[in-house]
Amino acid sequence: MQTTQWDSLWINVHLATMAQQGGYGECTNGAIAIKDGVIAWLGKQADLPERSVDAANVFDGQGAWLTPGLIDCHSHIVYGGNRSNEFEDRLNGVSYEEIAKRGGGIVSTVTATRAASEAQLLAQSSVRVKRLLQEGVTTLECKSGYGLNLDTEAKILRVARQLGEHFPVRISTTFLGAHALPPEYAGQADAYIELVCEVMLPALVEQGLVDAVDAFCEKIGFSAAQTERVFQAAKRHGLPVKLHAEQLSDQGGAALTARYQGLSADHLEYLSDDGIAAMAEAGTVAVLLPGAYYFLRETKLPPLAGLRAAGVPIAISTDCNPGTSPMTSILLAMNMACTLFKMTPLEALQGTTCKAAKALGLSHSVGQLALGMQADFALWQVDRPADLSYAIGANPCSGVVFGGKLVASNRY
Amino acid sequence: MQTTQWDSLWINVHLATMAQQGGYGECTNGAIAIKDGVIAWLGKQADLPERSVDAANVFDGQGAWLTPGLIDCHSHIVYGGNRSNEFEDRLNGVSYEEIAKRGGGIVSTVTATRAASEAQLLAQSSVRVKRLLQEGVTTLECKSGYGLNLDTEAKILRVARQLGEHFPVRISTTFLGAHALPPEYAGQADAYIELVCEVMLPALVEQGLVDAVDAFCEKIGFSAAQTERVFQAAKRHGLPVKLHAEQLSDQGGAALTARYQGLSADHLEYLSDDGIAAMAEAGTVAVLLPGAYYFLRETKLPPLAGLRAAGVPIAISTDCNPGTSPMTSILLAMNMACTLFKMTPLEALQGTTCKAAKALGLSHSVGQLALGMQADFALWQVDRPADLSYAIGANPCSGVVFGGKLVASNRY
Ligand SMILES: [Zn+2]
Ligand SMILES: [Zn+2]
Repeated sequence: MQTTQWDSLWINVHLATMAQQGGYGECTNGAIAIKDGVIAWLGKQADLPERSVDAANVFDGQGAWLTPGLIDCHSHIVYGGNRSNEFEDRLNGVSYEEIAKRGGGIVSTVTATRAASEAQLLAQSSVRVKRLLQEGVTTLECKSGYGLNLDTEAKILRVARQLGEHFPVRISTTFLGAHALPPEYAGQADAYIELVCEVMLPALVEQGLVDAVDAFCEKIGFSAAQTERVFQAAKRHGLPVKLHAEQLSDQGGAALTARYQGLSADHLEYLSDDGIAAMAEAGTVAVLLPGAYYFLRETKLPPLAGLRAAGVPIAISTDCNPGTSPMTSILLAMNMACTLFKMTPLEALQGTTCKAAKALGLSHSVGQLALGMQADFALWQVDRPADLSYAIGANPCSGVVFGGKLVASNRY
Repeated sequence: MQTTQWDSLWINVHLATMAQQGGYGECTNGAIAIKDGVIAWLGKQADLPERSVDAANVFDGQGAWLTPGLIDCHSHIVYGGNRSNEFEDRLNGVSYEEIAKRGGGIVSTVTATRAASEAQLLAQSSVRVKRLLQEGVTTLECKSGYGLNLDTEAKILRVARQLGEHFPVRISTTFLGAHALPPEYAGQADAYIELVCEVMLPALVEQGLVDAVDAFCEKIGFSAAQTERVFQAAKRHGLPVKLHAEQLSDQGGAALTARYQGLSADHLEYLSDDGIAAMAEAGTVAVLLPGAYYFLRETKLPPLAGLRAAGVPIAISTDCNPGTSPMTSILLAMNMACTLFKMTPLEALQGTTCKAAKALGLSHSVGQLALGMQADFALWQVDRPADLSYAIGANPCSGVVFGGKLVASNRY
């Protein structure tokens, strides 16, 4: 056995490498080889070099398109409870005020998440995660933020890590203690931020549960000054930051994030030109969340033309959460990006591959098909990559390869 | 063996019978029995009468919600070709004019559908139909209208019938010859309508391919006078009519449909108060199509308040078609009905069960759980029926019963 032997080889595939500026990086009639879980060769099948591979490890893609495994870079997928009752109440004409009185809104999710056992939380979240995996997702960001106390935030992040052990998916964890003010801190936002920075974050970092730090900077969330305290705490721990910014109003959150070399600023419907310039300068990714835009019937569009003109990288994500985007379809998020935001199918696919990887600080390992990158692929029964964004409610994913291994994601 | 023996029995289910005016017809901790493919008993499990059923035919629903099988009452699901290229071109800034010049638009689908063999058309359509079946659809309407000549319209409707033989689904066929003017009749709309009424319809009826007749009444389609000629031809054959009405402008199509005791008028964004009154009087169902509203970024909402006030039955459907609603998720159509049209989850579920049955003239046999109705069920792993409309991209369907038989729809 030679050391140059490949572990496995996919033939009869069309590659969309997403590794080329401004294009799909199409390589029709291609092949791709895997060694030690990473991409060892890729190109035209006709150019395939002689290399020994066990016949059992040669897979025929039968003309499928092969893309990087999709990346959902902004999710609150780990939560307890269910808010369909609130959804129904609201459509039956019950006021927000009355729903809040009944314990609805984010507080109901916090209560249910605190009450859930770790096993319950894992079971409930697994149902949602499986839907994403069926659609070719191989990297998923999971935020905390429905605990709002140390124990529950830790529980959420442990469940997030467990999802990565139970399923063929890379999990990136984000501590979002500054998501909302817990009821027990009503009127004491600064004291809660103190707790987030001085107690919760250090403890969670100690437990190895935090890959990045996030906050909700908004009139109904935390101020820019409070957000900056969270960022400073993150920096003390050497952690990258990101932000829920400019979703409902312009708080200058994106520019603040850029000043801290943030990985991403997310939502951005109310982003200003200054914010765009700051993000472009810092290389901060704009994560657009069309599911929330759709579910909230928002009418203010994110400034796509400005982001494009400034060269800000744009990612797309589900924002999966029970209150404003109960969505577990990354393909639908891509369709909504095209339909609602007028993004192109290319931008949508970049937004869930190479650009989403950048939003997680993982550009070196995932999100593109290139030598040395993780062998995370999705195979698609489509005529062309644009089909992924065009169809609504289809799932043409015919196979998933994770870390070089074929996984039967369509059996979940 | 007694004649009163049941063929099978479902226990440990919560029933949403959809058989009660103004409600889900909830029966928690219920059971439902089947004899000869129809519902032989239903009610509280505690009230289950003594009746012999083979133990092998007693199914434990494990607490699932059980609804009537869903009904997608407006689809153009049988077509050839793919228009994702056009979708991409448009988002890349190519003008409608240029796309038309390149042979795009409905003409490209007509060309591809004419060119496809019957087997190809069946294979392509099956992929889409399977997605609907996975979501608990047991009755599906299929329109012709991409052939626009006798041979191809016949081919489409034969494929529709074949779908009903290949899959556990009841197919209702609709002849939509008056969908668009074929290129070879440019400038001769009346002559084409003559062909539709005097040649195509009689031949298709003769072949047993037509359950109902439809037309596209619009400035860019056919006039009210032309539509009426189609309706008169349908009536001569004793066939019910329905209409694509008031989608882009008010042509009085809904009132015309009502005058012909039409089963449904569909789309209806531009429906007038007079149209509403006429529909209410005739019992014509309003079929709302939020997928097309969404995909076209329409802003004019159908007059929901007026329809409700007048007591017009409201159904919801995917409108699955390649040009304006490439959607194969009935659950997503329900979510869009709630999110975009502010319908309630109850209305959305009625819209895909009892009201959709009425839109197809099938109220006597499907769309409700009641004695003597077809035993077409869907089982759902949800906390409450509202979850079906609330979640975006989930599929909690855990089982489908068609004509009394359990089918493994989640294995497609
Ligand atoms: Zn979020
Ligand atoms: Zn239609």
